[in-house]
Amino acid sequence: MKKQVDLVIEARWLCPIVPKNTLLEYQSVVIQSGKIVDICAITSASDLYQANEIVQLTEHVLIPGLINLHTHAAMSLMRGVADDLTLMTWLSEHIWPAEQAVLSEQYVQDASLLACAEMLSGGITCFNDMYFYPKATSVAASQAGIRANLGLVVLEFPTAYATDAADYLQKGFDAHDSWRGNPLISTCIAPHAPYTVSNQTFETVLTYAEQLGLGIHTHLHETRDEIAQSQTEFGLRPLQRLAQLGLLGPNFLAAHGVHLIDSEIDMLAEFGCHIAHCPSSNLKLASGIAPISKLLAKGVNVGLGTDGAASNNRLDLFAEMRLSALLAKGMSEDATVIPAHQALEMATINAAKAMGLEDKIGSIEIGKLADLTAVKLNESIINPCYDPISHLVYTCGREHVSHTWVTGELRYSNGLYANIEPLELKEIINMWQPKLQLHKH
Amino acid sequence: MKKQVDLVIEARWLCPIVPKNTLLEYQSVVIQSGKIVDICAITSASDLYQANEIVQLTEHVLIPGLINLHTHAAMSLMRGVADDLTLMTWLSEHIWPAEQAVLSEQYVQDASLLACAEMLSGGITCFNDMYFYPKATSVAASQAGIRANLGLVVLEFPTAYATDAADYLQKGFDAHDSWRGNPLISTCIAPHAPYTVSNQTFETVLTYAEQLGLGIHTHLHETRDEIAQSQTEFGLRPLQRLAQLGLLGPNFLAAHGVHLIDSEIDMLAEFGCHIAHCPSSNLKLASGIAPISKLLAKGVNVGLGTDGAASNNRLDLFAEMRLSALLAKGMSEDATVIPAHQALEMATINAAKAMGLEDKIGSIEIGKLADLTAVKLNESIINPCYDPISHLVYTCGREHVSHTWVTGELRYSNGLYANIEPLELKEIINMWQPKLQLHKH
Repeated sequence: MKKQVDLVIEARWLCPIVPKNTLLEYQSVVIQSGKIVDICAITSASDLYQANEIVQLTEHVLIPGLINLHTHAAMSLMRGVADDLTLMTWLSEHIWPAEQAVLSEQYVQDASLLACAEMLSGGITCFNDMYFYPKATSVAASQAGIRANLGLVVLEFPTAYATDAADYLQKGFDAHDSWRGNPLISTCIAPHAPYTVSNQTFETVLTYAEQLGLGIHTHLHETRDEIAQSQTEFGLRPLQRLAQLGLLGPNFLAAHGVHLIDSEIDMLAEFGCHIAHCPSSNLKLASGIAPISKLLAKGVNVGLGTDGAASNNRLDLFAEMRLSALLAKGMSEDATVIPAHQALEMATINAAKAMGLEDKIGSIEIGKLADLTAVKLNESIINPCYDPISHLVYTCGREHVSHTWVTGELRYSNGLYANIEPLELKEIINMWQPKLQLHKH
Repeated sequence: MKKQVDLVIEARWLCPIVPKNTLLEYQSVVIQSGKIVDICAITSASDLYQANEIVQLTEHVLIPGLINLHTHAAMSLMRGVADDLTLMTWLSEHIWPAEQAVLSEQYVQDASLLACAEMLSGGITCFNDMYFYPKATSVAASQAGIRANLGLVVLEFPTAYATDAADYLQKGFDAHDSWRGNPLISTCIAPHAPYTVSNQTFETVLTYAEQLGLGIHTHLHETRDEIAQSQTEFGLRPLQRLAQLGLLGPNFLAAHGVHLIDSEIDMLAEFGCHIAHCPSSNLKLASGIAPISKLLAKGVNVGLGTDGAASNNRLDLFAEMRLSALLAKGMSEDATVIPAHQALEMATINAAKAMGLEDKIGSIEIGKLADLTAVKLNESIINPCYDPISHLVYTCGREHVSHTWVTGELRYSNGLYANIEPLELKEIINMWQPKLQLHKH
């Protein structure tokens, strides 16, 4: 007798990420209660399983849902509010004034919903976020049905959200309590950056992170100025300072890591730290180019992030996969660096590891959650296709994503969202754009 | 009485490129006999003109058709046939054997038609090509209705197409004769590269180019090896060698220009030469990163090219605009380098200048040909839009192109081509892919 299951996805091609650089053909992924319970030939699956629903992907490659390892979802409404400016002009004359004008729980929920829509339509099933009002972000993510690892942001200076470091932490833990039991939301602590967080606060963060078993996510070595400032103020480069404070370890995720000297790369490797590489944002803000091929060669775990929409201006991991692979080849003058399968690993399993979620997501394996993305390869202008893995990185764009599932639930398909109305997004844009426009000079 | 005209395009936004960095709103572009005869407010145009057809672009930005300044259209069928390999392995073990197996007039016509379809759908209205059997490319371009500046390729070694330099030239001029009077096709002479063309052939090319008033298009300083080899063989860097042969001047277009020392940048500026910058291809083949901000600062005219689909793997100028702007900022660590409007100029008017076609195309001006591209900005996930020019470069992709006109004729719109059947492209792919697959190791 056939076994009853919720969903069988029949895929022309399957790229499970684990095992490494593997491409399977004509495979069924069998899903029950949101989990992958079997992966086998389409013919075997139809012998073994009676599915409530069968989705036939006859011209598609099925991959694990992409994971955006560093973003600020609520900056989606600031997409293109200011470009082509030096970092400090951009921040102090454009982004911070715009942020001050709108920052509120409702703003963060609305802007995060738009970002969740954008990410789902681009095959992203999980994002690692850092922003004010994380509770509002969790509401948006829960509505959209996308997975989120939400940083409890901490910094010293007051905003509409919180007054000081203790207040940020308090509000963060309140948020954390609010989403207990929500299967889509997980937590880390997110001290904003070495230049906005004191030693004492970093120590407090470390204590809480250890007590609660949470990861730490911070901006690190993004610009030369950050490093120079730290040397002036502390007599140390930021990474050295955090090392002295005891923060480095396998629960430590540094976003950017653009400017790293060899001994720092060794230190990151030794402590088992993780890097969220954000190549578009690093180029656009002229921060520089992270030494990714060196980091990978030393065994540092590197995932990919879009950063916020204000500095990218797309929340698009297809763009980041392509750019990270191309950039590493060009910089190292070695075309074999970051082959296509490794760029895909950075956008999936590596990111899952960096968040401590590799037992749940990041690959298509039995027992993992069914966070899955289908990419349709039939369009003539992206053919012929000799190797779907190469195509995913070098040829396809996010416009080729046809289906996005989270925990086995279809959240996006062919331009439509399960839980977001098109009109809802238009209304959000129409409400907030005029308020932000005022702060565009 | 209203004046009768062929077509009026009413655009929510108009980015004419000339004058520089200009964005107009609610403008009509009035077209008669393939030319732009007026640009004025939508309300004025409806008072002045009786149009056979009115196209209302209520949520779009209208730009000049994009110009792909360096490509090998017929390599479209080799898209992704081999990736992540060093240049010489890629060429000698994959591309050249594959090329030898298929190279023929029919192959070039078929593969070029696929490339023309891809380019039209991405808003490209003109391409500057270099490949064997240019007559076949002209047949494909004429069918698709896309403008092409076709290089009469010349090199020393024999292929299925020609036996020696004299034969390449003879076949080139035969092709040139075949498309006389074809309004879509123009010509240049395309000595392949310094490492495949002798001094004597370069001199012959120069004589013909001067006699016939044709431009010269060659690969130059793409890799370090090319330069080292030239120093060994000629005691000169390739640019010096070509300078001594008298080739440099305002009719000289160098593709790539990755490795250029300061004195060479000065020389290119002094002689009024042009560069076709191909950032994706240069990164993917690990050739390096061209010093574009230096070239622009010295006044060298720089356009953008995709190179062939085998080394990109998209014929997508939206990707090249974004990458060129981001890369120049990151490399120079100056976010103000290549602002959005300049990336657009590189993909339009600069490329027109480089081909000597700036009196006909490259901007939306009265008297120019109506080569136009509409980009639809209404999709929620690319909104809000504070500045359509920024959006074109940093946020949009080619998937947002809704209409492409060449000489006032609609050639592509919403997934359909005026003169190419979807089935025709499928048949081309199905016919050639198996033959090329054999040569994929």
